[in-house]
Amino acid sequence: MAKKYVYFFGAGMTEGSAEMKNLLGGKGCNLAEMANLGIPVPPGFTITTEICSEYYENNGAYPEGLKTQVEKNLAKMEATIGAKLGDAENPLLVSIRSGARASMPGMMDTVLNLGLNNTTIKGIIQQSGDERFAYDCYRRFVQMYGDVVLGLKPVEKDERDPFEIILEAKKEKKGVSLDNELSSEDLRELVAEFKLEIKERLGIDFPEDPVEQLWGAIGAVFGSWNNDRAIAYRELNNIPGHWGTAVNVQAMVYGNMGEDSGTGVAFTRNPATGENVFFGEYLMNAQGEDVVAGIRTPRPINKVQKGESPLPSLEEEMPDIYRELIDIRKNLEEHFRDLQDVEFTIQKGRLWMLQTRSGKRTGFAALRIAVEMVREGLIEKEEAIMRIDPEQLNQLLNPVFSTDEKNKAIAEGRLLAKGLNAGPGAACGKVVFNAADAEELANKGEGNLILVRIETSPEDIRGMNAASGILTARGGMTSHAALVARQMGKVCVAGCGALDIDYTAQEMKVGDRIIKNGDYISIDGTLGEVLLGEIKTTPSETLRVLLDKTLRPEESLIYQIYAEIMSWADEIRTLGVRTNADEPNQVDNAISFGAGGIGLCRTEHMFFEGDRIDSIREMILADDIAGREKALSKLMPMQRDDFIGIFRLMNGMPVTIRTLDPPLHEFLPHSPKEIGALAEKIGTSREKLTSKIASLEETNPMLGHRGCRLGIVYPEITGMQARAIFEAACQVAKEGIKVLPEVMIPLVGHVKELMMQKEVVDRVAKEVIEAHGIELDYLVGTMIELPRAAITADEIAQVAEFFSFGTNDLTQMTFGLSRDDAGKFLPYYITEEILENDPFQQLDQGGVGKLVDMAVQLGRKTKPTLKIGICGEHGGDPSSIEFCHKVGLDYVSCSPYRVPIARLAAARAALKYK
Amino acid sequence: MAKKYVYFFGAGMTEGSAEMKNLLGGKGCNLAEMANLGIPVPPGFTITTEICSEYYENNGAYPEGLKTQVEKNLAKMEATIGAKLGDAENPLLVSIRSGARASMPGMMDTVLNLGLNNTTIKGIIQQSGDERFAYDCYRRFVQMYGDVVLGLKPVEKDERDPFEIILEAKKEKKGVSLDNELSSEDLRELVAEFKLEIKERLGIDFPEDPVEQLWGAIGAVFGSWNNDRAIAYRELNNIPGHWGTAVNVQAMVYGNMGEDSGTGVAFTRNPATGENVFFGEYLMNAQGEDVVAGIRTPRPINKVQKGESPLPSLEEEMPDIYRELIDIRKNLEEHFRDLQDVEFTIQKGRLWMLQTRSGKRTGFAALRIAVEMVREGLIEKEEAIMRIDPEQLNQLLNPVFSTDEKNKAIAEGRLLAKGLNAGPGAACGKVVFNAADAEELANKGEGNLILVRIETSPEDIRGMNAASGILTARGGMTSHAALVARQMGKVCVAGCGALDIDYTAQEMKVGDRIIKNGDYISIDGTLGEVLLGEIKTTPSETLRVLLDKTLRPEESLIYQIYAEIMSWADEIRTLGVRTNADEPNQVDNAISFGAGGIGLCRTEHMFFEGDRIDSIREMILADDIAGREKALSKLMPMQRDDFIGIFRLMNGMPVTIRTLDPPLHEFLPHSPKEIGALAEKIGTSREKLTSKIASLEETNPMLGHRGCRLGIVYPEITGMQARAIFEAACQVAKEGIKVLPEVMIPLVGHVKELMMQKEVVDRVAKEVIEAHGIELDYLVGTMIELPRAAITADEIAQVAEFFSFGTNDLTQMTFGLSRDDAGKFLPYYITEEILENDPFQQLDQGGVGKLVDMAVQLGRKTKPTLKIGICGEHGGDPSSIEFCHKVGLDYVSCSPYRVPIARLAAARAALKYK
Repeated sequence: MAKKYVYFFGAGMTEGSAEMKNLLGGKGCNLAEMANLGIPVPPGFTITTEICSEYYENNGAYPEGLKTQVEKNLAKMEATIGAKLGDAENPLLVSIRSGARASMPGMMDTVLNLGLNNTTIKGIIQQSGDERFAYDCYRRFVQMYGDVVLGLKPVEKDERDPFEIILEAKKEKKGVSLDNELSSEDLRELVAEFKLEIKERLGIDFPEDPVEQLWGAIGAVFGSWNNDRAIAYRELNNIPGHWGTAVNVQAMVYGNMGEDSGTGVAFTRNPATGENVFFGEYLMNAQGEDVVAGIRTPRPINKVQKGESPLPSLEEEMPDIYRELIDIRKNLEEHFRDLQDVEFTIQKGRLWMLQTRSGKRTGFAALRIAVEMVREGLIEKEEAIMRIDPEQLNQLLNPVFSTDEKNKAIAEGRLLAKGLNAGPGAACGKVVFNAADAEELANKGEGNLILVRIETSPEDIRGMNAASGILTARGGMTSHAALVARQMGKVCVAGCGALDIDYTAQEMKVGDRIIKNGDYISIDGTLGEVLLGEIKTTPSETLRVLLDKTLRPEESLIYQIYAEIMSWADEIRTLGVRTNADEPNQVDNAISFGAGGIGLCRTEHMFFEGDRIDSIREMILADDIAGREKALSKLMPMQRDDFIGIFRLMNGMPVTIRTLDPPLHEFLPHSPKEIGALAEKIGTSREKLTSKIASLEETNPMLGHRGCRLGIVYPEITGMQARAIFEAACQVAKEGIKVLPEVMIPLVGHVKELMMQKEVVDRVAKEVIEAHGIELDYLVGTMIELPRAAITADEIAQVAEFFSFGTNDLTQMTFGLSRDDAGKFLPYYITEEILENDPFQQLDQGGVGKLVDMAVQLGRKTKPTLKIGICGEHGGDPSSIEFCHKVGLDYVSCSPYRVPIARLAAARAALKYK
Repeated sequence: MAKKYVYFFGAGMTEGSAEMKNLLGGKGCNLAEMANLGIPVPPGFTITTEICSEYYENNGAYPEGLKTQVEKNLAKMEATIGAKLGDAENPLLVSIRSGARASMPGMMDTVLNLGLNNTTIKGIIQQSGDERFAYDCYRRFVQMYGDVVLGLKPVEKDERDPFEIILEAKKEKKGVSLDNELSSEDLRELVAEFKLEIKERLGIDFPEDPVEQLWGAIGAVFGSWNNDRAIAYRELNNIPGHWGTAVNVQAMVYGNMGEDSGTGVAFTRNPATGENVFFGEYLMNAQGEDVVAGIRTPRPINKVQKGESPLPSLEEEMPDIYRELIDIRKNLEEHFRDLQDVEFTIQKGRLWMLQTRSGKRTGFAALRIAVEMVREGLIEKEEAIMRIDPEQLNQLLNPVFSTDEKNKAIAEGRLLAKGLNAGPGAACGKVVFNAADAEELANKGEGNLILVRIETSPEDIRGMNAASGILTARGGMTSHAALVARQMGKVCVAGCGALDIDYTAQEMKVGDRIIKNGDYISIDGTLGEVLLGEIKTTPSETLRVLLDKTLRPEESLIYQIYAEIMSWADEIRTLGVRTNADEPNQVDNAISFGAGGIGLCRTEHMFFEGDRIDSIREMILADDIAGREKALSKLMPMQRDDFIGIFRLMNGMPVTIRTLDPPLHEFLPHSPKEIGALAEKIGTSREKLTSKIASLEETNPMLGHRGCRLGIVYPEITGMQARAIFEAACQVAKEGIKVLPEVMIPLVGHVKELMMQKEVVDRVAKEVIEAHGIELDYLVGTMIELPRAAITADEIAQVAEFFSFGTNDLTQMTFGLSRDDAGKFLPYYITEEILENDPFQQLDQGGVGKLVDMAVQLGRKTKPTLKIGICGEHGGDPSSIEFCHKVGLDYVSCSPYRVPIARLAAARAALKYK
């Protein structure tokens, strides 16, 4: 017997369910699930995702048996509805839609109104009693099929759509400006003209046979899995290409059958704020695409949402339908236990649900929904944690506009316009009117860009990702721009009708003001405001509560949600989270963010402050050990006082201090002017200084005289730093504060390097501790940041009391790739999928990760209880944190602002590998 | 029962044997072995090397039981000889000598004549009947003991020896110039004056108790294991510090008891030429140290060696003793089956052998002796191979002076002097009179230095190693300079009495000519000639026979020895040996040296020739692909023609060609003048060119845009190179010559990189091969030179058809160490023993080697028959070759001149791991 490739849904004969998402795709399995729940769904069937793979492997051929199964299911649909594909009297019309495992909204193709031809049109006229509606469907169908299936599209970038040209010509000829002013006759003519255009330009007759139409559309949907924008979307969202899409064939229902018909999209809760209120938009007498496309401004679904708007709401216009929707909303949320994003159509007063899926939401909404669903008893806190992408916390922590600054800007008349608050947050940057330009500028390092478009489309995805904020003139809260921005966590103001955008002139008019390409604007995605010029940002509400001890946490809803999630995360996680911090104020922040220690305190950052740089330069330029020791003795008290500050604040938490790491030439001036000034200061000649500086230059500084190689050649540097650490530790310990210093030796490649440096540290520690006459525990460990250190970790663990992975350098060395120089080819590598991700952002588990794993195992073979952490930037990246949990690290360390994200990611990892 | 720490030898009661070398040291076990062979050896005992370790571990304390064992063995000696330590009538005098597992000539301390005091002196006078001899011994003993045991030495570098000052004063007072002109009374006074000096300067009474003297001397010998020069020697010769030395206490015999006494050193064959003739030097009425110290010029041992010299020979002076020596020589060679270096003393007409050990020899002598011993049936060829250090082949292959040039120099009167041909070969360089200066200059990169000394001493070892040649004014063929130079393979002319060296003035006079520090001289160590100025060198005899097909190999003894060894090596080895060669003439040489293929042909070297550099620059500076392709099309035929030349020469042997590797900026000019010229040539502005060049600069070029990263971003480069390779291969194949191209992609870190580059190569190969209508086998493989490649070798092997380890880069990345920048600390690392060797010279088996091993195993897991080689510079280093054999590589590839060395090293590895 042939394998089952086709699953029926609706009319009480549903074969699939929500569990079959991988096979049926998100849309297909949810249609089946809705039907199972007794929700009204137009009947239809799903062709599985397996067929998609076969379709690509066999150059567009389908496996045996598929044809029969499709025919059988089509017959079942026809029987259920009492209409027949191609029937002259009572013809069945169907939609053909994609539906992959992961949602890829708008990326793939769809064909609607399929089944229309010169015969069935008559049946539709008769059935609907509306000739104009019938020809409007026919016109839309031929246009869509011509584009999607037959491929009649603009060839050149700036060419207009060939069907739109004909349509425009028709309207001009008829002296009308809107599509719906065209008569039934006009539309009939348009069908013929469209078909003629297809024939002329493609040499193809438009297929009259509805079955041929059907197979054409199925093939086109499968084919659209690999169109450019779908590939780009998958890249951005890490969706594997082999998953494939399913194809859903479903009976058409019409929201454009007059004023008792309509169509809408809704979220079971507010996807921007997470508030537990029904939220949606609809249009009467329209097809679904009209709502999303942003051409007509849709109406709010209920009175709450309507607010001050003069538009009517569905709750008022069709209260029965609204109540039915409310019931369905409850049914869906209780069943799916998550925010749902639904599409519905009202055909002549009857409600049909066309789709339900997990709704995209802002970071904040995700947090709030997860927390409130736990409170409502819909989900457990573990599930809540698993639902929140740690990066979404950024939306709680990222800066907002300073109220004073914004009020000042408004007072100065710089408020340009208001739009929809589609993606919360504050963004400020240079205006760019084109996605490709945004991408190019971002690649050149232009950090802050606001992409301004009349409306966005799937082609713009890369540019949207490159921009800090998105501003559109058209489209609602569920428009493409709004959906994508929320998912990306981008600030977005949508549907700002006051903008008059001129792509050709590369400018926009707002009233009498002209904003050109490159001008600065600021957008407030929380309030939907667009302002001229730059506006200073200020910490978010969460951040303010966290950092300002005078604020009252119980007054902030946002903070409470944050705190609740963090408390769950801390309860669940087993991985410690420390921070990388060099200065007391950073340490203070990190403690507020929940850091359990310092994983990396870079002592060299302290050297740049004030006139310390003079002493370090004096040390570097000294000709002998006596000269170096003299300069070091000036630095010692400064370093000691820094450590005193840090130890006091950390109050017993471990503090990992790394000894001097960067090559010495980084501390020296390089411009002739600075060199001259320094020469005078230290009393040497400019020539001598220049030559000394030149002698310290290196061909490959990354692989040069740095890390512990400095401390080995100049043990007096390590000695001074050890003295500063232990003097500080003893002093603070004497104040009654517990101190836990961990001295970390960088860039060790051979155990003997660590041995020699540890001897220096231990000797100084012994001296200082004995002199203070107290007891003090401390550790001496090393960074594992060279491949050789990872490979010989068993030997190094004989001396090291802890390991900390320096995955920045480890990645550089393992790949043989300098972060500073990779810009010429790394982006290309990622575009060409040679590398899945930037290995400096996400730990390369297939290569660098193997070294990490090896080092953990070798290290623990020597010392089973060896404390191991990570202090590279990967320590703040969720996927890397998951890896760290998996290989058995004790803690991750990241920048203070990443600490909450790391805590959440650690909890997720603990749940995943429970 | 206490462990056995002391082994007796001599007088038919020998307890040790040659097998106990690790325990008894070389001297001790060979004394035992000689005694076992019935060879006359003064009786004595050996304290084992184990005591040395205990001595250091316990701060100079000895284990329990040692004292008793020493006493017991001392008693046995006394009984055997019938003399007693400290006895007033018949006192025993002993020598205390070091003796480690590996020979360390002159590095450690010795005490002679021990047992003398104010009582026993009388007994010695009575026993010897020679008061002057007795006081001479006493004087020498106090001086030696005072220096070695009590530590009365010059403190400052230029201070004179305190005992020598007193001695000189005495001679002056007595109005004599030579030591042996001093009377018995003078010597008695000197003993008292020496003791007084010790008391005054050290506050110690000279020990009168002979047992106290004995323990003092034993401790001093153990202590000398860790003196500076011993440590330096061990560093140079890779002798581990934990081996320790044994101590030999032996009855004294005297070569200075009158004209029927004497002392000498001899080699069982000529250590410089390897010729099978007895070879040695002696002095009548002298102690052993007099021969080695080079103060008196010793006499040749036999008539053959004497040649034209007016000096008498031992064969003539004492024919019976000479015959006895000849018997011993035979006995020793048959027993030890190797060249022996012996010391003997004749005491009042009786021969005593004091030492035998494996003799140091020149590289050529080692080869000749090994080959001839195989011919004589003394050893098997496998043993012969194991005895030859592969580096010794250099002495056969290194250049000699061009005869024409030297004759010309002689004709110009530039022959300065003649000395002993102590270390064969030709060296030319700047004169330096001080070992420390030589070392310093060499570290600064001064390549060619001739160290000129009156005589050398162990303190000079580092300086000798730093120099290309060594020239001494004093000392014979067995002097320190000669011994060490032969071992190091340095060119050496010793005992060149015509030199009048003035260290203070930093110059030497030869007749009326003055040669100053920094002047050039040339020395011919094969003929013992010293010439003024530089003389051009020419290939050695072996090399000439190898490279010049018109010479007759059967006429060259040297070549025949070389060829015989190579034929044995090739028979034994399983590892292939290829060469790294880029140009036809290098390839030609490599074939003569026995290369079995090309393991690395660097295509970029071809780009620098003639006006090719213009085309490559044009390619680099092109703004688009069309521009690049235009330039590449000019390069293609040039590369093709190179490959044609190489394929023809290789005649069916595999040729591994690496695609473009270095960063592009290496091809561009950097001086303003060159930039200006290039701008004009390619018709662009100087500004544009400067900015383009600047844009290609990299912070860490080693980790930048190079290797396959170039071919990935610019596939047209790889395409051009593939076209050149396959066009050439097809053309040569059509000529009827077998061609085996192996295209090698550099710097692969991820399998997808290789996949993409292999696609390009395969596509072009298919096109070209089909166009030529022939069949052609080829491989596409990769270098494993990034840690990530080694770690993911299983994945890479899914695509690669061969691996070649690029251990230069692999070492750089694994250590995080740039070869260009390591000069500031790597020498320090080696001195401080953080690293045992320079990892760029010897493969770091503990780190980089683990990655190599891992990659071999992972690669073969995927493809069990994967061909794997190495083409880093380690491919020519014997210890690394041994490693390559051990981990299962198929071949090593090295520079042409290293091919014979690699063949021999490969054979030795095969024998070692049989």
